[in-house]
Amino acid sequence: MPDGGPVMDIRIDFERLKRDLEELGRIGRDEHGGISRPSFSPADLEARAWLRKKMEAAGLGYRQDGAGNQFGRLEGSGKTVMAGSHIDTVPQGGMFDGAVGVLAALEAARRIVEEKVTLAKAVEVASFTDEEGNLVGDFLGSRAFMGLLDENEVRNGRTSFGLPFRDILKKTGFTAEGILAAHKGRPALDAYIELHIEQGPVLEDEGVPIGIVEKIAGKHYRQCAYVGESGHSGTTPLELRHDAFLGLADLALRATQLVATRYYGSVLTVGKAALHPGAFSVIPGRTDFTLEFRSASPEALAAIEKDVFALAEDIAATRGLIFVSKVVDKTMPVTVAPRLTGIIEEECRALGYPSMKLVSGAGHDAQILAGACDSGMIFIPSPDGISHAPGERVDWGDLEKGANLLLRTIIRLAS
Amino acid sequence: MPDGGPVMDIRIDFERLKRDLEELGRIGRDEHGGISRPSFSPADLEARAWLRKKMEAAGLGYRQDGAGNQFGRLEGSGKTVMAGSHIDTVPQGGMFDGAVGVLAALEAARRIVEEKVTLAKAVEVASFTDEEGNLVGDFLGSRAFMGLLDENEVRNGRTSFGLPFRDILKKTGFTAEGILAAHKGRPALDAYIELHIEQGPVLEDEGVPIGIVEKIAGKHYRQCAYVGESGHSGTTPLELRHDAFLGLADLALRATQLVATRYYGSVLTVGKAALHPGAFSVIPGRTDFTLEFRSASPEALAAIEKDVFALAEDIAATRGLIFVSKVVDKTMPVTVAPRLTGIIEEECRALGYPSMKLVSGAGHDAQILAGACDSGMIFIPSPDGISHAPGERVDWGDLEKGANLLLRTIIRLAS
Repeated sequence: MPDGGPVMDIRIDFERLKRDLEELGRIGRDEHGGISRPSFSPADLEARAWLRKKMEAAGLGYRQDGAGNQFGRLEGSGKTVMAGSHIDTVPQGGMFDGAVGVLAALEAARRIVEEKVTLAKAVEVASFTDEEGNLVGDFLGSRAFMGLLDENEVRNGRTSFGLPFRDILKKTGFTAEGILAAHKGRPALDAYIELHIEQGPVLEDEGVPIGIVEKIAGKHYRQCAYVGESGHSGTTPLELRHDAFLGLADLALRATQLVATRYYGSVLTVGKAALHPGAFSVIPGRTDFTLEFRSASPEALAAIEKDVFALAEDIAATRGLIFVSKVVDKTMPVTVAPRLTGIIEEECRALGYPSMKLVSGAGHDAQILAGACDSGMIFIPSPDGISHAPGERVDWGDLEKGANLLLRTIIRLAS
Repeated sequence: MPDGGPVMDIRIDFERLKRDLEELGRIGRDEHGGISRPSFSPADLEARAWLRKKMEAAGLGYRQDGAGNQFGRLEGSGKTVMAGSHIDTVPQGGMFDGAVGVLAALEAARRIVEEKVTLAKAVEVASFTDEEGNLVGDFLGSRAFMGLLDENEVRNGRTSFGLPFRDILKKTGFTAEGILAAHKGRPALDAYIELHIEQGPVLEDEGVPIGIVEKIAGKHYRQCAYVGESGHSGTTPLELRHDAFLGLADLALRATQLVATRYYGSVLTVGKAALHPGAFSVIPGRTDFTLEFRSASPEALAAIEKDVFALAEDIAATRGLIFVSKVVDKTMPVTVAPRLTGIIEEECRALGYPSMKLVSGAGHDAQILAGACDSGMIFIPSPDGISHAPGERVDWGDLEKGANLLLRTIIRLAS
């Protein structure tokens, strides 16, 4: 389809998109602030029913798979162009993370229907279950869609709230069998495209409304512990201690320094720690903590793993501690196909929107879908870099640009 | 009284003392291990009734003050020689911390009665309430006895279990008024002497059964926090972070190093920390933690305070964090009167027990009593340095030596 043809003057109905976002944003309001809409919660079930109605009202063929992934389909021949994201949230999250991608894709499909745009391929709007990983690991829905789930995880996993996953399922009508079989009905995909807030400070810092994601960072999550020796803080001289917390302090500082200097652009985070027994005058005999690192480079990710865990063992040996760790999650970095970044760039230029290429530090369903087709992302700025928090917001002007770019990219891909 | 006279051949009845310790050790057994007998708990009330009976059976005049401190008195003229400790425990503590000092003093008084030893001064066996600080700060009983309590702390304090102190009191028959007035009936004291397990590794390392305490370390407790900025760990580059946990890591390592190198013999401990919000992929925006340091030297204690909190502020400035802290408790170091250490040393020599002088790193009621009279302590070894834990133990031979030394010291002081 040539640039600038009549079809390409098509624009989204921004007021309608904004109304949809605001309607969805009222479902799952948390009395402590923000929105709490984890997948399969009562609020999520309400949101799913709402989304189904919206898809059906738009004239899309509605389908839900065994994992609760929701799809609205515009029939076509050959492979399917899919666009979407997720409508679940972290506890006390915001109204844009995920919702923007699903509702902008819905709005794009509505406009295609309204304008009777003829497309060669099928188009599907997708909303994936539990992108936020409140249940058993991130990306439950998209991993189910791809057939990547571990059966044991689904049948015996515990949720982040401490309940067995199967107890949550019982209340919803979904089943482990259904989740494990969800990938069987998957249509052949041509491409997947996801509009999302950046969740970081880069676009805002650069004053650019559109980010074209060229890489999605991989990540490595480990649950770790240093085990030393507890003791009375008043009676155990410093030189006789095996303080498990000082082991963590040493590791956190030196591993951060190592990543900052040797693997620029990668990140490492200790987000959670528990000192045992945990009292004013007791030397910590054990410290449990999380360690997470991310990189857009598979080589850097492997090298950080090697370096950081060698360092962790060194520190243990020096301080007379034992270091233990368990991999909780690992995802590989994804490089977006040049066909896709090329099309997005061309459409962005045609619309006259400033853009820049960037790396997504956060993980997204798009990186899971990359196993099945060309998979790409469009970012809009996150004011003050805030996400996963009640203060998460967007500039409406940027959102309008992002949604128009998504619409044109879908049309280009499906033509 | 001359050394070696007939009275000084007196020895404690060790089997009886051991039976008493084992009887008391059965009160407050915790199903999770060890003994949980915090002051004013049902187990503590049971132990108090048991102790009262034992004191009365020994022929001592029983008295309880408004703070629940229990006394068994042998009448005499002039000032009182007091010996004791406490019978409360930390949660899941051991059967010797505190109990040894009270029951050895009781056994000493019993032997004095049995042998009809004539003493010039009165002798009192004392058991102080809540030495372990499970209620409102350490040493509630001895501080009440000394008139050192803060009225607001007693009336409005919260216990370490989270309940208002006044709610605990209601169940026991004790009152805030009674606690605040407890010091009014205090007899004039000549000396206070306390037998205790070392709770540290020094005596065992040196192979010496008796420690003569010449100093009790002072301590400084602060509840602290670094406040930074939370954010998504995947999307916030390391150089843009204000990670509150890395502030603590930096402080813990550098403050420990500072104390180890500049104030040898002093200690500093971070025993408790909480990272907020506390998740794999969220940069800690706030980290609450405890900071505690101890020294036998008042000058070192003041210098550590100055140096450590200057360092804490430096780290905050460098890392773009805010440092806040609140004093929770402060006690000054105590130097034991040479009269007392001299008498203990002489009696130890007369008994033929090896001994060494040492510093008590842990706090004890003896340091509170030092405000009213010469106040000293005798330590016996803690095998493996274990205390405040189910595995706390003593070597029975060491305990026998300690109790005999206590008996002879009481007689010398009261003669």
